[in-house]
Amino acid sequence: MTEAQARPQIETLKPPPVCGEHGEANQLVRDLLGRIGDKWSLMIIGNLAEGPLRFSAIQHAIGGISQRMLTLNLRQLERDGLITRTVYAEVPPRVEYEVTDLGRSLIVPALGLVNWAAANADQVKARRHAYDLEHGGPATP
Amino acid sequence: MTEAQARPQIETLKPPPVCGEHGEANQLVRDLLGRIGDKWSLMIIGNLAEGPLRFSAIQHAIGGISQRMLTLNLRQLERDGLITRTVYAEVPPRVEYEVTDLGRSLIVPALGLVNWAAANADQVKARRHAYDLEHGGPATP
Repeated sequence: MTEAQARPQIETLKPPPVCGEHGEANQLVRDLLGRIGDKWSLMIIGNLAEGPLRFSAIQHAIGGISQRMLTLNLRQLERDGLITRTVYAEVPPRVEYEVTDLGRSLIVPALGLVNWAAANADQVKARRHAYDLEHGGPATP
Repeated sequence: MTEAQARPQIETLKPPPVCGEHGEANQLVRDLLGRIGDKWSLMIIGNLAEGPLRFSAIQHAIGGISQRMLTLNLRQLERDGLITRTVYAEVPPRVEYEVTDLGRSLIVPALGLVNWAAANADQVKARRHAYDLEHGGPATP
């Protein structure tokens, strides 16, 4: 694969708006990136791709997230305008979460990252093992 | 836009490998997602899209990252097999960082998220403001 073949999409995806400046706008974008890049947020958005879900269904689908952490993340996503929380007046009351139009626009990028992690986790694990053997330990200080 | 028009790409991006199970593999994928979803890692990978860069150039391009945090992130990305660190025997020595083939495969998903944040930061800010007015404060506990 040549250089030109490898990079066509990338040229259109350059990140100039975030990088190279230090104004308030960039701080805002960095903070938002920290929020939406959170692994739980990414997985919540990804799991809402096919339609609304109840709290327990999201918790089951993600696996490994505590009730408290899921509650907090759902509330933050609601505050960010990415999901809605709807209470249906049934007995017992039914509460469903669903992406907004803004949240829907995040589904494809979020799943891009989730699926990359799923597809490459074994390879990264092998690279880490090789790195640790060569450097005598993990990279964290 | 109809439901069918809005979701064609999403169907092919379903995240079944991560979600719904609780084995060691899923833990690994979640941990990796936590690593690559980190805002600094996303921006570093995004900035290496167009070729190798020196430490100072990356720091300048990202903006707002401390020397210590950048050093730590670069080392973690190197350990994960996503970037290489090359020292050129010049005076003074030149050190360059470049994506590996594995890291290159992360560029498009990473920039997808970075660019989403850049494009939608103002809108999210407005939603947060509206949420806080309605709920009497931010969502964080």
